[in-house]
Amino acid sequence: MSHKRNIEVCFTPATYEHFKNNDAIVVVVDILRATSAIVTAFMHGVKRIIPVGTLEEAKEYKSRGYMVAAERDGIVRDFADFGNSPYNFSPENVGGKEVCYSTTNGTHSIMMARESYRVLIGAYLNHQALVNYITKENRDLLILCAGWKGKFNLEDSLFAGALAETLIETGKFETICDSTLASIDLWNAANINLMAYIDKVAQRHRLAKNGLDDVIEYCHGFDMTNLIPVLKENFLVEISDF
Amino acid sequence: MSHKRNIEVCFTPATYEHFKNNDAIVVVVDILRATSAIVTAFMHGVKRIIPVGTLEEAKEYKSRGYMVAAERDGIVRDFADFGNSPYNFSPENVGGKEVCYSTTNGTHSIMMARESYRVLIGAYLNHQALVNYITKENRDLLILCAGWKGKFNLEDSLFAGALAETLIETGKFETICDSTLASIDLWNAANINLMAYIDKVAQRHRLAKNGLDDVIEYCHGFDMTNLIPVLKENFLVEISDF
Repeated sequence: MSHKRNIEVCFTPATYEHFKNNDAIVVVVDILRATSAIVTAFMHGVKRIIPVGTLEEAKEYKSRGYMVAAERDGIVRDFADFGNSPYNFSPENVGGKEVCYSTTNGTHSIMMARESYRVLIGAYLNHQALVNYITKENRDLLILCAGWKGKFNLEDSLFAGALAETLIETGKFETICDSTLASIDLWNAANINLMAYIDKVAQRHRLAKNGLDDVIEYCHGFDMTNLIPVLKENFLVEISDF
Repeated sequence: MSHKRNIEVCFTPATYEHFKNNDAIVVVVDILRATSAIVTAFMHGVKRIIPVGTLEEAKEYKSRGYMVAAERDGIVRDFADFGNSPYNFSPENVGGKEVCYSTTNGTHSIMMARESYRVLIGAYLNHQALVNYITKENRDLLILCAGWKGKFNLEDSLFAGALAETLIETGKFETICDSTLASIDLWNAANINLMAYIDKVAQRHRLAKNGLDDVIEYCHGFDMTNLIPVLKENFLVEISDF
């Protein structure tokens, strides 16, 4: 009889309905770049972030005077103050402010999971903080990868593997989920030389085409903060403000 | 300028709409056990197979005198002649006959792809035959894994990796698809000791619980036949009869 908690990995929001578990903690992952940017915003003192799925909602917030970050396919939209690079979420741009944020894949995934017990924003930047929080809660875990337009992507799945492996090594979690097992194996294959491995992923090529790949190493840096953004109603706040 | 053909891997029919490409060859994969069973049926002289998505359709075929194979969650349905084990598709059961077939994941995936240029049934059993046929055609390739109830599964993805890697090694194919890259890496991790690796997959545990795991080694045997089942209108026939 095992009392370990279960981990599942959902590779794309397109399959979320098959994994949905409202009693679980959900960690949303969009490493390149939405969730890395959100964690960075909290590191730089943002008050709260309003994630919205559509550009229309983002425009509406802009007209109401909010700072707005909005991009599609990696390109900042002309009505927005800035786009998706974590470097845009500087203390000057976001410190003490409320920021509305809409991205290609990430913000949609966050809102999709909103009925769950807890929706956390995950990135390498706050990996150990996530591990500490999740091991204290007595809940199953679902790692929801934002993917790319309904498809699997490597960079989110690798982080899912890193997080799942660390949690299983605590002895408090287990998995019987093939996508979790696959993520862990992919993580171990990639982690031999992570930056060389990331060189082949499709999103790196998309970012490089637009000169936006300067953040890749930053977005794969472990444990830069203890902050965990969490969804509270329709806003992201730091978990100590939950 | 590359004139190589592209390979994509779709991990589950739940994301098929994001990969759909009607100009492509689609190889449907359900290693444990539907596509391994279908290939076996042609090895044993079946005339044609009628894949149906619902049990109601399967019952209708039974009432019209067809031999019917039908299972859900690995369990044969009481109105059916037999279930999903390749061992059931013996020369005595299927030789010279038309067989109606309905399974949990596989037959649904076959019918989903029916608007494609060609829908082939793939398994380790006819791996090299697939490679020979696909390299002769000048088409992109989509490998559609049946998965498990909308989720990723390991055994189908491993085969996708084996097939993709062999095709890329011919020099005629390439990929920019993260799920194809992941499949190849998983295949290479697993292929060090395939049977030991398969031991951990969820479907092995489901089959073992019902005493149905005797076929696992058979379903991972390479190149037992040159036959390729192909969808022709609503029937599966051998490709020389297409």
